[in-house]
Amino acid sequence: MRIKIINPNTTQSMTDKIGACARAVARPGTEIVAVSPAMGPASIESHYDEALAVPGLLQEIAAGERDGIDGYVIACFGDPGLLAARELAAGPVLGIAEAAMHLASMLGSSFSVVTTLGRTIGQARHLAEAYGMARFCANVRACELPVLELEDPRSGARERIVAECRRALDEDGSDVIVLGCAGMADLCEHVADVLGVPVIDGVAAATQLVESMVNLRLRTSKRGELARPLPKAYSGALQGFAIRG
Amino acid sequence: MRIKIINPNTTQSMTDKIGACARAVARPGTEIVAVSPAMGPASIESHYDEALAVPGLLQEIAAGERDGIDGYVIACFGDPGLLAARELAAGPVLGIAEAAMHLASMLGSSFSVVTTLGRTIGQARHLAEAYGMARFCANVRACELPVLELEDPRSGARERIVAECRRALDEDGSDVIVLGCAGMADLCEHVADVLGVPVIDGVAAATQLVESMVNLRLRTSKRGELARPLPKAYSGALQGFAIRG
Amino acid sequence: MRIKIINPNTTQSMTDKIGACARAVARPGTEIVAVSPAMGPASIESHYDEALAVPGLLQEIAAGERDGIDGYVIACFGDPGLLAARELAAGPVLGIAEAAMHLASMLGSSFSVVTTLGRTIGQARHLAEAYGMARFCANVRACELPVLELEDPRSGARERIVAECRRALDEDGSDVIVLGCAGMADLCEHVADVLGVPVIDGVAAATQLVESMVNLRLRTSKRGELARPLPKAYSGALQGFAIRG
Amino acid sequence: MRIKIINPNTTQSMTDKIGACARAVARPGTEIVAVSPAMGPASIESHYDEALAVPGLLQEIAAGERDGIDGYVIACFGDPGLLAARELAAGPVLGIAEAAMHLASMLGSSFSVVTTLGRTIGQARHLAEAYGMARFCANVRACELPVLELEDPRSGARERIVAECRRALDEDGSDVIVLGCAGMADLCEHVADVLGVPVIDGVAAATQLVESMVNLRLRTSKRGELARPLPKAYSGALQGFAIRG
Amino acid sequence: MRIKIINPNTTQSMTDKIGACARAVARPGTEIVAVSPAMGPASIESHYDEALAVPGLLQEIAAGERDGIDGYVIACFGDPGLLAARELAAGPVLGIAEAAMHLASMLGSSFSVVTTLGRTIGQARHLAEAYGMARFCANVRACELPVLELEDPRSGARERIVAECRRALDEDGSDVIVLGCAGMADLCEHVADVLGVPVIDGVAAATQLVESMVNLRLRTSKRGELARPLPKAYSGALQGFAIRG
Amino acid sequence: MRIKIINPNTTQSMTDKIGACARAVARPGTEIVAVSPAMGPASIESHYDEALAVPGLLQEIAAGERDGIDGYVIACFGDPGLLAARELAAGPVLGIAEAAMHLASMLGSSFSVVTTLGRTIGQARHLAEAYGMARFCANVRACELPVLELEDPRSGARERIVAECRRALDEDGSDVIVLGCAGMADLCEHVADVLGVPVIDGVAAATQLVESMVNLRLRTSKRGELARPLPKAYSGALQGFAIRG
Repeated sequence: MRIKIINPNTTQSMTDKIGACARAVARPGTEIVAVSPAMGPASIESHYDEALAVPGLLQEIAAGERDGIDGYVIACFGDPGLLAARELAAGPVLGIAEAAMHLASMLGSSFSVVTTLGRTIGQARHLAEAYGMARFCANVRACELPVLELEDPRSGARERIVAECRRALDEDGSDVIVLGCAGMADLCEHVADVLGVPVIDGVAAATQLVESMVNLRLRTSKRGELARPLPKAYSGALQGFAIRG
Repeated sequence: MRIKIINPNTTQSMTDKIGACARAVARPGTEIVAVSPAMGPASIESHYDEALAVPGLLQEIAAGERDGIDGYVIACFGDPGLLAARELAAGPVLGIAEAAMHLASMLGSSFSVVTTLGRTIGQARHLAEAYGMARFCANVRACELPVLELEDPRSGARERIVAECRRALDEDGSDVIVLGCAGMADLCEHVADVLGVPVIDGVAAATQLVESMVNLRLRTSKRGELARPLPKAYSGALQGFAIRG
Repeated sequence: MRIKIINPNTTQSMTDKIGACARAVARPGTEIVAVSPAMGPASIESHYDEALAVPGLLQEIAAGERDGIDGYVIACFGDPGLLAARELAAGPVLGIAEAAMHLASMLGSSFSVVTTLGRTIGQARHLAEAYGMARFCANVRACELPVLELEDPRSGARERIVAECRRALDEDGSDVIVLGCAGMADLCEHVADVLGVPVIDGVAAATQLVESMVNLRLRTSKRGELARPLPKAYSGALQGFAIRG
Repeated sequence: MRIKIINPNTTQSMTDKIGACARAVARPGTEIVAVSPAMGPASIESHYDEALAVPGLLQEIAAGERDGIDGYVIACFGDPGLLAARELAAGPVLGIAEAAMHLASMLGSSFSVVTTLGRTIGQARHLAEAYGMARFCANVRACELPVLELEDPRSGARERIVAECRRALDEDGSDVIVLGCAGMADLCEHVADVLGVPVIDGVAAATQLVESMVNLRLRTSKRGELARPLPKAYSGALQGFAIRG
Repeated sequence: MRIKIINPNTTQSMTDKIGACARAVARPGTEIVAVSPAMGPASIESHYDEALAVPGLLQEIAAGERDGIDGYVIACFGDPGLLAARELAAGPVLGIAEAAMHLASMLGSSFSVVTTLGRTIGQARHLAEAYGMARFCANVRACELPVLELEDPRSGARERIVAECRRALDEDGSDVIVLGCAGMADLCEHVADVLGVPVIDGVAAATQLVESMVNLRLRTSKRGELARPLPKAYSGALQGFAIRG
Repeated sequence: MRIKIINPNTTQSMTDKIGACARAVARPGTEIVAVSPAMGPASIESHYDEALAVPGLLQEIAAGERDGIDGYVIACFGDPGLLAARELAAGPVLGIAEAAMHLASMLGSSFSVVTTLGRTIGQARHLAEAYGMARFCANVRACELPVLELEDPRSGARERIVAECRRALDEDGSDVIVLGCAGMADLCEHVADVLGVPVIDGVAAATQLVESMVNLRLRTSKRGELARPLPKAYSGALQGFAIRG
């Protein structure tokens, strides 16, 4: 099977890291295709960045459909464009926040999310609410690390993340950690080893869930809200996004 | 004061109608600027259409900020790009579903939304939930009218909407009607006259609320989640969306 | 249009202040009628005070109906008698907690209420829950100031309120402040200037919202729960409240 | 022990019936004092009636405190003035909707309320929500019987109530019935015999619960929201309600 | 009437204490039968202990049905086997957490639970949620006392519980205390005297509620989810639990 | 890896079927061990049956721990004993209702559960609520088929299930079906083919999710509520369940 992991920002080093993390957990027969969109922000740290990452993401979904991709992962913790992507895709599409939160709810009594900048805490809470996971989400905490500093080995990111995770366990009463950024995927094993509790990276989690769905022949329901978009005219710079009848 | 009403689809006849409805309720000293974006879908009937209406919408918000606009209305019942637009704007930004649902909750015990296509029911429910209005929303109903048929006087839209509203009052136990599409703005008075209950058009409602906020000197809070987006590189066709430092 | 602002307590200096604040934001053509009831408590600081403020309030609504008033504001943060007043009135009736909370939810990610005595915190929470605003209400905090001290310029109220608002922003993670007493209406501008975030006074907010509803010809729905009370006998000191058939 | 049952309307025949129903279930040593207030509406069928029943009700609570009453029942299904009464009383105060809904939630998987006029359905729902009982409340149904027709043996009330209860069991999936008016107290046994499921009359339920609380020496907490009202001036016709310091 | 109080653990000294506490509050004509099951754990401090206390508990319910018992109390704060017991019993069955939380919600604005080991906090929260009491439950706190230390007069349990209750009132904003273990039943009066707020022991609370239900002829509804279990084969060590047709 | 699938009832033909369904979806390297407990009910159709299936289930978990099992599936749609099993196991433990509902929430806008007897609808709803999935669960429907009739090819079960699923899609507005009994596992493919929407069998879903968790080295958190049970004495027929220190 072929799973496409879309890093919705345009930073290739992060895409490479995400792809490697997905491949490390994928089943033998699974081909992981990891891409960045052709347009959009270098990192996603606001609703604005998120919204503008979506057109490039949807292009990659459309391309994936032409290529016969079996399922998709949206590798940004804000899960941008999730429902739009599901309308476009025949197979399953998962966000990494979604996948991580669902797994976390089955491994302990509650989880804390540890994310990058404080300004993104709101979006993590909105998602927990929308997915029915708010009752399991003890807290969302920020390290105040910009996303791209995660790419810099001298940033001290690893230590700051571990320290914030410890505070989460001590102060929030939670017993599971969810890493709140795709750029933390490569730190998951280290953090888990140090903390001794389940630590969930959404990239790995979503990759596994999409593989499972494809294996079970489960595809996005096309009966209602997520039916394929209707054909219609698009204009201007987005003309190419028009759905043909 | 200057209020910009952004119809996020590119159908100019609908933008003209929306602008007229906003002007009809605006205060004497208010200038209404009604626009369509330079790019995007001709109508919005899916999450996909919504997502792709956002870049053009954000361009209009950015232009509005340069022009000293005091507040904004997003004139599509899915309230696309609402939080991203709020990050960009100094003044208030309201969606028409948001404005209509809030007013409805203060005028009766519960409301029904009457919208266009059944596939958009889900989005109206997501919004009611996100705004805290789910407890007041007795039902969301569709007439199965495509958005652009509302522009066609021969479509029988008016009769079908009135009929669905009657069913809502009879079957849902609601006592207020919310019209679920900006394209229905010009029908509001007629439907209200026929039904004898409050009928709310979000375009008029949001225009009034934004005017009120501007008058009260209330602007979007820049302290947390809705702070102005961070400067960063954008690439490809969306390069122009980069925020400068 | 004529809007009647009812301060449900009998302290005339507070009524005068509330009236002035409402006039300061009202539209040119709007006449603001600010009154206290003929009977009831000098201030409202308990469920008991609230309950006993309602008969006088309802007298003022009934008088307003005879006088052709277009809409009403109940200017006490407990929103006493709101649903009873709506049954009696043809036009819209808003409480100041209701109006302030709704506007707050559209200007930031969450708000804190800063109120007078700690014993009134419960009522603010009940209202947030009843209006669907609990998800936006980060906290309700008290300055432990009796209501009538707000009328005394030497009480240090202004400083204590500003200090509690600062604690709210620092400790609650909120980004909008709601002032939790009609008697704070005249402090709103000062607090907002000092804090640099949106600060909402319910008197001004409700005045604007009622004006908007009247302008939109939106009246209280008479179809269900809020229909006019049925005619029936009333006895004793409340005999005069009987509704005629 | 002495329990005071306050029928908040002024119809003495209903008060007598309610008193008899309470006495029929009270423990041997309990004295039941059943009263109507000296002022207020003849029946309660709106938020307006409810609000205006409260002053008379509070007079009776105040008198009860002087007389050494141990606990109180508010015998109207809207539970008017409940929190105000709790502030005034040292002992427990229960509403009949409150008591009935709590017991119902422990006897089956969900209950239906069968009440008088459709316009009171909203209040029953508000109470279920406020008490945490909404998840157990499958539906609230009305027989469209005015309250005072329950006093008229020729009204056919008994048959209409039984018929509506049957519909509740068949259509709502509930397995317990809550009678939604104090005036139905004398019908409880008959309805239960006919239906073969638990049928709860709030008057009997609340009487038992208050007796239990008194027996357990449980009194209303005076630590926070329900502390005794503060002393202050009251004016006009309500002057006598002032709390002394 | 005869009420059976089942302590689901096998520690006889605790059963004796629980029986004495129930007898101290029961009505004159009520016979209290207090038992421990013939099999199961010596104390209940985990979901595992709870699950394995249930078979012995159900044996006692079945025996009670043969003996004509009128109602039952499950005297462990995790309310183990509650719904299964209700299926088996004709009369009412209450858990002590359930009874205590319901009463607490009617005596103040919110309650704190003070329990034994921290690992049981989760179960108390699950129950508060399931009973609709989460909105009244300000916090659940643990003294980190093993259940059986409550049986040891030298353990200092009384002082530690009082100290934790004080912290609850100071830090949680609650105004009622719920004792979170049947083994604390004998401490209730002391703790209440020291704290001056309502303190609720679930054993006494549930005993009173079951008595009330029996007195009101209210029995478990057999119409739906709680109908008597269907006859079927059981095998192995649990063969004796088979229901006969 | 080795996954143990525990059918908590003692009907071997159902266990064989469940094992086959799990093997059909398991990864090449996974060994599926499918067992029934040594004691308990032949089928699970009540809270009573569920409670008494748990001891045998826990014996199988304990045996699995000694055998080095990597993860567990509880193959009954009531998810009996889930939290107790998690305390006992080092690896992940999933219930089939839990797994199916989580996957369903990611494949459409809402799902309907189609189960066996109407009396089990309540338990499915309790689980949806506890897992945060209530917002996605449009309805729970019963075919009124006893569990063991699913084992009888002449029962017409397949047709009745398909018919009820059709009604679900038509009347509930859902777009995904969840099969509400482990005994329906072999019908999943057929029902999906006929209906053309995603149809989820919990046995396959849970098998995949447990495999994914094991592959990600995610184990049950032992930090809080789900820590291993404390050592203590057990007596009577359950003596063997004592945890050693």
